[in-house]
Amino acid sequence: MERTFTALLARMQELRDLQGIIGLATWDQETYMPAKADGARAHQLSTLQGLYHERLVEPWLGETLAWAAEQPGLEADQRAMVRVLTQERDRAVRVPQALVKALAEAQSRGLAAWRQARKEKRFSIFQPALARILELRREQADAYGHDGERYDALLEGYEPGMRVARLTPVLTALREALIPMVAAIVAAPRRVPEVLKGRHFDGEAQWRFTLRLLEAVGFDLEAGRQDRSIHPFTGGTHPSDVRLTTRIDEANPLNALFSTIHEAGHGLYEQGFSEAHYRTPLAAAPSMGLHESQSRLWENVVGRSLAFWEHFYPVLQEAFPQALAGVDVGGFHGAVNRVSPSLIRTEADEVTYNLHIVLRYEMELLLIHDELPLADVPAAWNERMKRYLGVTPPDDTQGVLQDIHWAWGEFGYFPTYSLGNLYSASLYRAAERALPDLTGHLRRGELLPLRDWLRTHIHRQGYRLPAEELIRQVTGRGLTDTDFLDYLRSKYGALYGISL
Amino acid sequence: MERTFTALLARMQELRDLQGIIGLATWDQETYMPAKADGARAHQLSTLQGLYHERLVEPWLGETLAWAAEQPGLEADQRAMVRVLTQERDRAVRVPQALVKALAEAQSRGLAAWRQARKEKRFSIFQPALARILELRREQADAYGHDGERYDALLEGYEPGMRVARLTPVLTALREALIPMVAAIVAAPRRVPEVLKGRHFDGEAQWRFTLRLLEAVGFDLEAGRQDRSIHPFTGGTHPSDVRLTTRIDEANPLNALFSTIHEAGHGLYEQGFSEAHYRTPLAAAPSMGLHESQSRLWENVVGRSLAFWEHFYPVLQEAFPQALAGVDVGGFHGAVNRVSPSLIRTEADEVTYNLHIVLRYEMELLLIHDELPLADVPAAWNERMKRYLGVTPPDDTQGVLQDIHWAWGEFGYFPTYSLGNLYSASLYRAAERALPDLTGHLRRGELLPLRDWLRTHIHRQGYRLPAEELIRQVTGRGLTDTDFLDYLRSKYGALYGISL
Repeated sequence: MERTFTALLARMQELRDLQGIIGLATWDQETYMPAKADGARAHQLSTLQGLYHERLVEPWLGETLAWAAEQPGLEADQRAMVRVLTQERDRAVRVPQALVKALAEAQSRGLAAWRQARKEKRFSIFQPALARILELRREQADAYGHDGERYDALLEGYEPGMRVARLTPVLTALREALIPMVAAIVAAPRRVPEVLKGRHFDGEAQWRFTLRLLEAVGFDLEAGRQDRSIHPFTGGTHPSDVRLTTRIDEANPLNALFSTIHEAGHGLYEQGFSEAHYRTPLAAAPSMGLHESQSRLWENVVGRSLAFWEHFYPVLQEAFPQALAGVDVGGFHGAVNRVSPSLIRTEADEVTYNLHIVLRYEMELLLIHDELPLADVPAAWNERMKRYLGVTPPDDTQGVLQDIHWAWGEFGYFPTYSLGNLYSASLYRAAERALPDLTGHLRRGELLPLRDWLRTHIHRQGYRLPAEELIRQVTGRGLTDTDFLDYLRSKYGALYGISL
Repeated sequence: MERTFTALLARMQELRDLQGIIGLATWDQETYMPAKADGARAHQLSTLQGLYHERLVEPWLGETLAWAAEQPGLEADQRAMVRVLTQERDRAVRVPQALVKALAEAQSRGLAAWRQARKEKRFSIFQPALARILELRREQADAYGHDGERYDALLEGYEPGMRVARLTPVLTALREALIPMVAAIVAAPRRVPEVLKGRHFDGEAQWRFTLRLLEAVGFDLEAGRQDRSIHPFTGGTHPSDVRLTTRIDEANPLNALFSTIHEAGHGLYEQGFSEAHYRTPLAAAPSMGLHESQSRLWENVVGRSLAFWEHFYPVLQEAFPQALAGVDVGGFHGAVNRVSPSLIRTEADEVTYNLHIVLRYEMELLLIHDELPLADVPAAWNERMKRYLGVTPPDDTQGVLQDIHWAWGEFGYFPTYSLGNLYSASLYRAAERALPDLTGHLRRGELLPLRDWLRTHIHRQGYRLPAEELIRQVTGRGLTDTDFLDYLRSKYGALYGISL
């Protein structure tokens, strides 16, 4: 095959097309696929992933990428494409096929053991499978290569460029600020009542309202769609084909509302990539944390703000005149922002949420470093829960077994959730500087100025820069907990009537 | 790569998985894909088809198939797998890539020219594009190879094993029997009124009724689904994942009813392949004609029979009590079987339908043989319409431009529709011999005995035998028009009160 940038681009496009199709098959699996097709779909996905891997590790691609990296005539975007694909390929070639296979098997066993362990509420049932997963993930980290910090090699798979040495001080400081903040809120004399409990919210009306929200945030429903699934997610095949899902619960409208706004944040990112980057490695977020910053910015910073609901609460009331009778916008805003230390990460509020993450991050470091006997994991978990959040899981299912991530072998993933929160606050602050009437826009239901600012400064940049560099370019500084803590202090201080 | 049957099977499975995924991407394109994803999907499909072709023509596969064909130890099914994949591969390698590309381009231009020609109702606008398509298809036929009959080489792509020398006498005899039959029916003193005209049939009620039909014929909705699309079709990814579509028209319930039964016939075939054949070339119909025999057997022989509606018409009336008020089962049965020579193939009744096909088959032979100047095509078409059906198209759009097939370069496809009709009648007659109370079953809405008989004798056989051989094995003789003509004579003689 020829050694030209055109040939290289054609291979990049082929790889992106395959990723798109894998996205379609995965989306379909969670939405419309008939139940009995499970086994066939697993084969189909494995065939596609095998083809993708085979094309990626082909020696010609490695040689052509190395050649391209030396060409002085390439444009900046072309150089970035070469850099990003080289990173991906280098990681793929470093892991021996035997290890890939062993990991897939360990994950599959891990998942089964985790499900059984949850059923019986005993971590010990999951422990042997976890031991094997950890052994293999350590081996994989060494195969990727690192400067003595194995966790860095795993983190790189989700948050390229981020390092433990950079992350630990930020998350530790965050933890130290959050623990007293939670305590102060819990002790606040003002109560925030759960005004939505015990009411019924018609499913079809919820669905229609979520579509209104999608329209309002500027999600293009001709270049995407929304469907229902058990676990909401964002998928699709291409920036012109972005697929969100949401979940309707007639007893609790917040599920669908915030799932839709959250996934719309991801979806706007995907739809916002530059046409010039389509079908290349640049039509991608530089990290999971940055992707998550978009979903959390829309879900939390915008979607749980009083300004946002000043416009949308009357619309919501029109959709649910009976269910929302007697609830005013203040009561609703309080109900969607109640702070309450709890056991389950996915149900946590904005203030306590990151303590759940820091706990997992600390546990993961210990596990990957092999510094914690596995038999002691539940006790270590529970001890931290008590220390950080003041609560104690009654059993392992509500404790260390609550997340699927470790059963899937995903170590290094959890911190990207906190990075998403920290980046979202910093980005929103930068947006406020650039759009002086941003709060006014929200109050009037005008969400497009914010979307367009994000589109210009984040979405259209794609993967030109690593996440923290892009954040630095947009906000003037890199990763920090300052903006996020300021945001929490101001919002929750007002809500609970205390000084934080 | 190693030369073992296991390695060969793995490649067969990979190819089937890719076909399945192409099926998913195509289904999605017609059902749920957002409008703006058109361009991206074309790229994705072209990448998948390119990969499929690349894997198929790889020299290793050819060598291994040749090696396997010589192995005495293979089981019968394994030998059949080798034979079927060898046939497919041989055809693929014979066509030079330049011709494949030229054909794709000619089809794309053909489609655009055909659309424009239809708009302006003038064949001459389509003529240059058609000339190019014919030139390339002749070249392709010569590349495939044939014994002096170019059309055979094209027919082979849809109906493997069938030849012009076998087909022409059967279709000519069919034509000669049908022309007087149509004339006799048109002249019959008894009229069959259009009792369904001008009524309104609620779309949701139609949808629910089609699902009842799917259940009744034994289509497994856990191994398949039904959705809506503009043009109904059967697709999917695997026998455990078969996807039908239907089309709802509130002014005409027959659209959805018969689309669903027709596609269910295809779908039952796909769901009925043997588990032992999954992910191999044997999990396939041996020809388009045989596939069509299943859809037409269910749609026409069963779905337009009086016995079938004796059970289902009361159910239909319950679903549409107002719309069907005053229409009895006899009136309804007449309305779904009215014979009326008309211009448009897709709207033709069972008696006139095959005259539309014979006309196209004869025209295709002339065109592929280059025996008809293209400027004379509309006149030749109209002259045949007059001779066979007694009607004359007022313009080319209602005449020679009505079908998309030629614009797509599909020459050799039309006769498979007639083969479907002829095979369906022969199969039904064989089923009647095997299931003596078959009419009684239909009268009681019991459709599973027929489905199970077809499953055993047709579906589970997959592609073990060529179509006509399988038909011979099941019915005792090969392709014939006798059973079909007997079926028409008996049914339409009774309906119109004449002796045919």
